[in-house]
Amino acid sequence: MRAGPSQEDIRRHNLGALLRHVHLGGPISRAELTTRMGLNRSTIMALTSDLTAAGLVREELPRETGRAGRPSLVVRPESSRVYVFAFDVGPDRLAAARVGLGGAILDRREAARQRGPFQLEELAGALAGFARQMRRKTRDDTVCVGAAAAVSGGVRKSDGVIRFGPNLRADEVPFGEELGRRLGLGLPVTVGNDANLAALAEHSRGVGLGVRDLIYLHGDVGIGGGIIAGGHLLGGHDGYGGEVGHMVVNPGGRACGCGSSGCLEAEVGERALLEAAGRLGRHGAAQHGRDAVRAVVDAADRGDIVAQEALGRVGDWLGLGVANLVNIFNPEMVIFGGMLREVYLGSAAQVRSRLALHAMAPQREKLRLRTSALADDATLVGAAELAFAHVLADPLEALARVSG
Amino acid sequence: MRAGPSQEDIRRHNLGALLRHVHLGGPISRAELTTRMGLNRSTIMALTSDLTAAGLVREELPRETGRAGRPSLVVRPESSRVYVFAFDVGPDRLAAARVGLGGAILDRREAARQRGPFQLEELAGALAGFARQMRRKTRDDTVCVGAAAAVSGGVRKSDGVIRFGPNLRADEVPFGEELGRRLGLGLPVTVGNDANLAALAEHSRGVGLGVRDLIYLHGDVGIGGGIIAGGHLLGGHDGYGGEVGHMVVNPGGRACGCGSSGCLEAEVGERALLEAAGRLGRHGAAQHGRDAVRAVVDAADRGDIVAQEALGRVGDWLGLGVANLVNIFNPEMVIFGGMLREVYLGSAAQVRSRLALHAMAPQREKLRLRTSALADDATLVGAAELAFAHVLADPLEALARVSG
Repeated sequence: MRAGPSQEDIRRHNLGALLRHVHLGGPISRAELTTRMGLNRSTIMALTSDLTAAGLVREELPRETGRAGRPSLVVRPESSRVYVFAFDVGPDRLAAARVGLGGAILDRREAARQRGPFQLEELAGALAGFARQMRRKTRDDTVCVGAAAAVSGGVRKSDGVIRFGPNLRADEVPFGEELGRRLGLGLPVTVGNDANLAALAEHSRGVGLGVRDLIYLHGDVGIGGGIIAGGHLLGGHDGYGGEVGHMVVNPGGRACGCGSSGCLEAEVGERALLEAAGRLGRHGAAQHGRDAVRAVVDAADRGDIVAQEALGRVGDWLGLGVANLVNIFNPEMVIFGGMLREVYLGSAAQVRSRLALHAMAPQREKLRLRTSALADDATLVGAAELAFAHVLADPLEALARVSG
Repeated sequence: MRAGPSQEDIRRHNLGALLRHVHLGGPISRAELTTRMGLNRSTIMALTSDLTAAGLVREELPRETGRAGRPSLVVRPESSRVYVFAFDVGPDRLAAARVGLGGAILDRREAARQRGPFQLEELAGALAGFARQMRRKTRDDTVCVGAAAAVSGGVRKSDGVIRFGPNLRADEVPFGEELGRRLGLGLPVTVGNDANLAALAEHSRGVGLGVRDLIYLHGDVGIGGGIIAGGHLLGGHDGYGGEVGHMVVNPGGRACGCGSSGCLEAEVGERALLEAAGRLGRHGAAQHGRDAVRAVVDAADRGDIVAQEALGRVGDWLGLGVANLVNIFNPEMVIFGGMLREVYLGSAAQVRSRLALHAMAPQREKLRLRTSALADDATLVGAAELAFAHVLADPLEALARVSG
């Protein structure tokens, strides 16, 4: 059970809470912080001056003030000075970003990835190269406080090993360790599942802002999920929580890369859609990936019957899967991201009709269905949040570690 | 976002934390509390003397001590003085219990319930009658600090209305309000879903003690679920979380009371089992309920082929449902309660084989399958925990309210 907090615990808690306000909400006046945090002015002043001394925030006079009297100083994150590296490894792309405190993407690099076996050294080398390129362009007074990566696969939370990633063809890959070594910054690289991190991103900065119970569904080659329950990311015992793509929706259905059959991923993933639309292995245009999925939705919009039926079939299974999750979680919002954004927009009628059929009325009466606000940045933004987590938990200790 | 804690917040937090230790863990020495709570001796002394003055705990010399020197006083819950009423409304029974601080059931009443429409006034009247009978037998210095009820249905957390309860034939029933009025103690009655509360009970005092990620599956006529994720009960946006019984496992399968078909409840519930075993509507012996389910399992044990096939079929669907939940939640433990205890014990081979087929290897490598430790008391014990929750959150305020 939890020990009672000491004075030092409380100070650390308050420093983290104040920095979180500034990091997630942007510039804010001391007066507003006093109100929001329920602390008195002198405590807020002491906390901001600690964070200022550590170089995490700065205080400025507000641009204009409508009121008489001395204006309250505005506290801003040191966005251009304090940053993290965020990485994303998907089936079709590698991406890296330098993300400032406050959440802005300051710089980014991206490359297409050929689908094929997971080449650990090549891949970590490429991402570390991106980081070096971006680092060379920073000023001398900048400081990298963390690094994290989103990967399309199941990641053991204790050590960042990719335990399974059929769509990356990764299996028992010590990715975090290798990337950390290649980065050479003396920083550990935390690794998370891409859909989990995208869920966190939509919850912190996207369409799910302030929504305490949401389900984010991510489509790539496969289907991943990230679940926020009661305001917290559902991680499960070892970090593999949220693998909704391997919920069986159609027993005896299509074979799945995981070895089972009839999984949501097998019925709704890219391959199922393209095959139903008669576009698998078709020559010319995109043969797979996001463009190929978009082409099916566009064709359906233009009246192509085969494309319409393919989307309808996929939408039915997607709707059934969403209905199951709505019954289990009673979420306030379901968010469709990655290629599921296109699929949902092209099959919303089927999804809604399945929901009406299979989700219980009380669970769906306040439900909102939405598409991702952060789109393809969601995974990078989520990885950045993961990289900043230890700074928000203990700001001064985190800064002392990287500056010392 | 959370405001910084005041001195008063910290004292309240520490009083609650100390009382929680005593309530859940039983008698404990002041010295042990000092260690476990990470607070110094004088703080522990001040906290226990506040709780003693409020009549929530008492301090005693330990029976024996192997050590020299002054023994540390032992802090005990005032179990026979401070109590709550816990109620349970299932398809086949009504139960009420007087539960002391510390969790012991001090007294109880139970009656069979005829399956039929939910008669609010009759039902609330019967439960309130049980409470009055038990109250009459208490000493003058006892104090009832709360009341809560477990019901087989979906309960809106904001007001305790039963929104749906096909197996109780309840629909939009203001149960908490009516039971509170009939009790006449001036106390609100909190209402929760029975499987949710049983999950809480197994997590606090049963086979799931200390397990932060668990799934409890409860079988009655229907199938309910209670999920502990990261140490917290998954409630969802309005309190309807955990309705795993209405996850579709067999699209186009058996019709379900909820209006959908192929739900876990429709394929695995009492009716599915008895029908497959050719025992629905059979005369003589029990026609439904726990005894009828037990009779099928017993017959299968004795070599009855029809009963074995029925259990096998139900076990297959149960296993598929469990596999889906294991993929989604990555729990450390799945607990089978109510009539699912018997069903699981009779079909463990099928359940395990479905898990091997449909659950991903990393999610199941540390998974433990268990049966309920609290058996038919789980719902009452969980309801008692719900009734005590406000006392543990703010002990002195809660006591002042009922004593004043």
